[in-house]
Parts: sequence; C-alpha cells; structure tokens
Amino acid sequence: MITLTSDFGSPYPAAMKGVIRRHTDAELIDVAHDLPRGDPRAAAFWLRFVLPEFPPAVHCAVVDPGVGTDRDALVVRAGEHVIVAPDNGLAMPPARALATDESDFEVWTLAVDDPASETFHGRDVFAPAAARVRTALDEAASAEAGAADSAGDGSLDADAIAAALSGLDDLAPASDPVDIHFPEPSVERDDGDAIAIDGEVLAIDRFGNVITNVPGDLVRDRDWLRVNGDLTPVAETFGAVDPGERLVTVGSHGYAECDVNDGRGDGAFDLRPGDAVRFVPDSVSL
Amino acid sequence: MITLTSDFGSPYPAAMKGVIRRHTDAELIDVAHDLPRGDPRAAAFWLRFVLPEFPPAVHCAVVDPGVGTDRDALVVRAGEHVIVAPDNGLAMPPARALATDESDFEVWTLAVDDPASETFHGRDVFAPAAARVRTALDEAASAEAGAADSAGDGSLDADAIAAALSGLDDLAPASDPVDIHFPEPSVERDDGDAIAIDGEVLAIDRFGNVITNVPGDLVRDRDWLRVNGDLTPVAETFGAVDPGERLVTVGSHGYAECDVNDGRGDGAFDLRPGDAVRFVPDSVSL
Amino acid sequence: MITLTSDFGSPYPAAMKGVIRRHTDAELIDVAHDLPRGDPRAAAFWLRFVLPEFPPAVHCAVVDPGVGTDRDALVVRAGEHVIVAPDNGLAMPPARALATDESDFEVWTLAVDDPASETFHGRDVFAPAAARVRTALDEAASAEAGAADSAGDGSLDADAIAAALSGLDDLAPASDPVDIHFPEPSVERDDGDAIAIDGEVLAIDRFGNVITNVPGDLVRDRDWLRVNGDLTPVAETFGAVDPGERLVTVGSHGYAECDVNDGRGDGAFDLRPGDAVRFVPDSVSL
Repeated sequence: MITLTSDFGSPYPAAMKGVIRRHTDAELIDVAHDLPRGDPRAAAFWLRFVLPEFPPAVHCAVVDPGVGTDRDALVVRAGEHVIVAPDNGLAMPPARALATDESDFEVWTLAVDDPASETFHGRDVFAPAAARVRTALDEAASAEAGAADSAGDGSLDADAIAAALSGLDDLAPASDPVDIHFPEPSVERDDGDAIAIDGEVLAIDRFGNVITNVPGDLVRDRDWLRVNGDLTPVAETFGAVDPGERLVTVGSHGYAECDVNDGRGDGAFDLRPGDAVRFVPDSVSL
Repeated sequence: MITLTSDFGSPYPAAMKGVIRRHTDAELIDVAHDLPRGDPRAAAFWLRFVLPEFPPAVHCAVVDPGVGTDRDALVVRAGEHVIVAPDNGLAMPPARALATDESDFEVWTLAVDDPASETFHGRDVFAPAAARVRTALDEAASAEAGAADSAGDGSLDADAIAAALSGLDDLAPASDPVDIHFPEPSVERDDGDAIAIDGEVLAIDRFGNVITNVPGDLVRDRDWLRVNGDLTPVAETFGAVDPGERLVTVGSHGYAECDVNDGRGDGAFDLRPGDAVRFVPDSVSL
Repeated sequence: MITLTSDFGSPYPAAMKGVIRRHTDAELIDVAHDLPRGDPRAAAFWLRFVLPEFPPAVHCAVVDPGVGTDRDALVVRAGEHVIVAPDNGLAMPPARALATDESDFEVWTLAVDDPASETFHGRDVFAPAAARVRTALDEAASAEAGAADSAGDGSLDADAIAAALSGLDDLAPASDPVDIHFPEPSVERDDGDAIAIDGEVLAIDRFGNVITNVPGDLVRDRDWLRVNGDLTPVAETFGAVDPGERLVTVGSHGYAECDVNDGRGDGAFDLRPGDAVRFVPDSVSL
C-alpha cells in the first residue's frame, strides 16, 4: 500500500498515480490533496493524526514551499512504516507517532537529480521514489517468504525494512534533517489547579474549527472558559449551543478546539495557525 | 467492497480507510465526503440516488449531527446490500431503494461503547463496524463456496447475509429505528389535467441546482411554468436558455429541477432544502 | 485499469463507479471530477498533461456541455490507450499525446440509445461503454495469453487493441470527429531574438495560476518581461518574489505561467482562458 498526501489539488495527484502504476500495482489510498498550500506544519499535524490509523505502509507526502530550491528528499522509516517526503520537517511528527520508541527511527536522504524549473517534483521525484521503496519492500517480503519456505504474510519487521532500504543505492543516511516540533502549552497552576493555559493554534480544519495544542483533559470538565478574554461555553457537542454560537469542545484528535455551531471558529475567534490562545477558567477572577 | 460516504471533508475519511485496512483488504470506493454538513436528509437523498447503481456491497455512511449524543448505530440489510450508519434515518431511503420488496429488509442495532467526546465515530465506531460486517460476509461466502465444493461466485443471497449478520454478537434487532420519508408532491387537477403542483425542495447540488420532489413527467411536456409565481421556461437542456437565465429541467434522478444556465438556481429562485415550491402551468390563469 | 475524469463534482462519479463494478473488477483511478464545468477545452488540456503518465489504460472522460443534444460518443485508440468520451473534441489532444505517431490512432463512434432528458450520460452511456471496452480488452489479453500457451503479461499491442475494439458491434468508424487544437504562439523576431511573443491562455488551475501556450524556453532566461504591458519578474520559484507579488514562471507542463506568490494570477493579471497574452522582453523599448 502507498498512501498519497499533498496540497496539489486536482488533477496533479493523478499524474503521480500514473507514474506509480508504471512501477508497481500496490494499492493507492489518498489521505488528502487539499491540505493548506505550502504549509508543511499543517501537513505534519494532519499526517500525525491520520497515518497511525494505517497498517504498515509507504506514505508519500508532498507539501513543499521549497520546490525549485535546493532541498533534499527524505525517506524515513518509523516502526514498520516508511514516509517519502521533502526535507522540510513535515515527515517528522508523523514518524514519531508511527515509531514505537525513539530508536525505532531512521532517516535517509534521497538523491534528487538536478531539478529543472518545469519539474513537477510530486510526479518526477516523490512518486517514483515511493514506487521504488514499495517495490524494494515487496521484493524483500517475497524473498523472506521464499527463504522461510512459507507463504508468509507479506509483512516485514522494522529490521528487514531498514535492510531493504539500505540496499537502494540512491539513499544515504541523513545527517541533519529539518524537523518540526509542535509546542507544548504552558499551564499556570495555583495549588494544583490550572488557572491559565497558554496554548497555540496548530491547525484550522476545512470547517473553520480552530485546533489548539491544549490537551482536552485540561478543558473538558469546565462549564465556561475565557478564550483570549471572551467567556465561552465548554460543551461535548456542537448542538449544546445555538447555531451561530461559539463553544470550546474537544476534537477527535484529543485537543481543545474553538468552534462555532454551524459556523466558522476561525472567523468568530479571530484565530490563525500559530496564534496564541489563552484559556482561563471563569471561576478565576480576571 | 465497502463504499464510504460522509460529510467529513478531508483528511478524516483517510483515517477510516486506515482502520478498515487493519481488518480487511476489501475494495474501498468513495461515494462522497463533501455532503451537506450534519444533514442526514440530504445524505439519504444522495445515497438513494447512488447506491442502487452498485453491485451488492457494504456501505458505510456517516452524516451525523448527533455525534456525542446517545444515538445508536445501525446495520441495515436491504436486498443483498448492507448499510452501516447512525440511527438518524439516513440509511432508510437508500435501503428501501436497494430492497426488492418491503420484506426484503432487516435492521439491527450495533452496540456502541461509551462514547467519549474525543471519539471520532467515523473512525472508532462505523469504520470498524463496516470492516467487521464485510469480514463476516466474506467468511460466510468462503464457507458456502467450500460447502458446495465449488468455487462459488463469492456472493451471498439475502438469507445468507442475514444469517451471517445474526451471528455477530454485538448486533441486536432494532426496535424502532429513526426513519426519513421524502414527501410526495400534491397535485391539484382539473378534469385530469394538473393545474398546480405543490412540491418541496429535496436537495441542492454543488452547482446550485434545486432538486424538487416533483416527478419529471409532471413538467416535461410544458413550454412554460410559473415557479412560485414567476414565469420560467421548461427545457431539456441548459443550453436552451441564455447563460444566466432560469429554467425548469428534469435531472438525471428523474425529478424537476429549478436551475440557471451557467449559474446557481438556489440563488435565482431563492430556494433552500425543505422549502415549498409550486409549479403552475402557464395556460392556467393565476 | 479505467481512469475517470469529469466535471460532475460529487457524488455523481460514484454512480459511474457502481455501474462499472457491475461489469468489471478493473482498477478505477480518478483523474479529476472538478474540472471546469462544461469546458471540453480545459478538459483536453488537463488530460493531455496527465494521461501520458499512465501505463496503457482505458480512460473515461466526460465533460459535456452537449448533454441532451445530438452528439455522438467516441472510442479513441491512441497507442495502447483507449479513451471513451463525448464527440466534442476533448479526447483528441490527449490522444495525440498518447499516440506514438500520427498513424497510431483510430476513432470509432459509439451508438448511443435515444437519450431521454433524465439520462445521466456519465452513468448511462460512458461508464458502461468504458466497462465494455475494458472487458473486451481483458478478454482479448486472456485469449492471447492462452493461445501463446503462456501467462503473458496481460497487455495487448496496438493492433490487438484495435482488433478487439473492432469486434464490438456498437462501434463504427468515425467519419468526422470534432477536434480541438491548441493554438501555437506567434513569435516576432529581430535578428533571431524574440522581441515579442503573442500567446493565449490555455487554462487556469485551481490556485488561479494562468497557464499559457508559450513554451517555457521562450521566457526562462529573462529577468523581466512585460506581460500585456506590465513589467513582471521572471523567476524559477514563487518564493523569489514577496507574497502578493506577480511573477512569470514555468509550470510543470513546460509552459509560461502568470502567477502570484500566495495569491491568484487570474485576478492580478486579469486573464481568462482564451485571452491573448503578449510577452515582451524588457530590454526592448516599447
């Protein structure tokens, strides 16, 4: 299986699929092709959310404001998954989520031939690389199954994946890949109780829901919170407030969200990715 | 095969696919993930239109304004198809379209574990349920093929599907599932001729075409109709009127639509889902 | 494999997939379903860009302002590919790109049964036709493999494809299919140097990038160009100019584009498909 993720819209991802099909019949599953344009941080957030749901796979993820510049392509093994992506950090948060521990992790640089400006890197670099990785893993799995004189289950463990990737002659260990780290919120406490939480907006989804880095447990049992000063109800479901009304809720990713029932939270709260957001329980005097 | 339908946008459906792939290699086909948000009625309309085109399959359909509330999940067998969906009525109109007659129909409730607010029901409830149903049917088909000492064609008849589903221990017969019924238009007649048709808007498609519940045969052979009082040409094709002009036409679903050539009918006719729409042949004096 | 392309949005293409699945298990890959509505020229442009990336396949492409009118459906063999499409020209530019030379090309008319206005041609005409073509090719490949007493590789050469299609009794050689030709730019030269290039806008992508018919080589090595009179930097990457600033660059299709970094080129340059666009190197006095 190869999953595909990009900010290319349509029909560019189909060109990537065509190229992959020239090399392998592996199943293709789209993660998304409408991610925020040129925003590796948003891509990293969503991939960290989605990829761990998959069984071991090759993931080709291209969100790349650096097209045409001198950045490398990476191949990252994390657990029994492999991510093929530009070296701009987007692969690292999902890779950490896929790894079972910190040592369960390897990063290679993929040689990219002299990029001309009309190169479509998704089609000309990353799709063939993902196909090559997929083929190498499938061949290794076949060889392993043959050696064991058994049908095998077609899966490789992490060591076997690493060995197969090491055999690809255009991969070299990466010395210093770009990384993205999502900030932790800071919590001000008084006698153990959180009296203020300073977080940050990680992403906005297509409905305008504002996803913060504040763990749901810090807001879940409140009735009201001040969000950057404005009193806002906390609820488990959108329907707990009237249409058009604001609320704080906990999304399926486990983080506090600033939302509007039947509306857009980003507009109502005036929040964008990277913005600071301060939650203060209302029982605290301001 | 498992079809997937939701109002989740992107990339949430990919999380559902990842979960399903942990359980089964069944083919996955997207019906739509951009259905009107939180509108089970619109979902029911579109599923009734699309699902009958498919050969027997498992259909996982999640449009659910009740997330986080106390509603059940349903498994509905209709003919040789199975729909897995929230108990909010969206499954029923397509199920009736898939059934060969009224008795060709069974509904079970699926036990849903204590839903926490960060639960993403599409991923955590409906995707695994669809995978479990698919696996149960595939195992039953294999067993049947084996018993008959023949290759079989991998398909099960309705009784065999019902038997396989009854064997799943978290399914229980549903006592009173929520249903959605689309209204019939009322037709005022004078000596057999329709002189006024009172219908309702069932859905708006992404182009702004206003789909009513009025059967095409009631409007097709007119030249002009008054639509809520305004004189409007009736035509077989958009191109019969100038760009920007309104028309009544019959869509591929067989219903009368209020459209604009190269424009949006919902704006021009000021119509929304559920609105009343009155068609009066122009030869009738108003 | 069958690729699918349309301007139908969602969920209409799923109905096409359901119909195809009743006839064949061939893999289905979406090229795009959000192409500019009713614009065969734009569809031809994008298909010419994407289809050559694929290995031999059947391509079903439906962008059709003539629905409900009296136009034929076509089956076009180009190289080892087959395109099934309405007879409005959209199939021809990609077919020429798929053909190895001018004789590597055949066009048939597909009999379309009396179209009623509620017919959804994508579902009722083109999807079944693509499935029938796919099945005929697969059967011919099986027969060939059997005759050779070998497994074969499942692929047919151009002659075998043509023979298989000729055996379909609802195909007849097309006498005069509609064609679309993209214009060539005209280049005014002075002593061998281009001093003015008169081109045309071929397409606008979803980001608002204005794709012209001017080959990249004619603009690539400039620093500045006048675009319809306005001085504009030429750059290899969007990042070479500030956000909101205009630039001329060369897209992955190899043509000059009029773009805006982090913005829409169509608005900034006031250009639409079919508009004239004149590039003049700035060293030339105006």
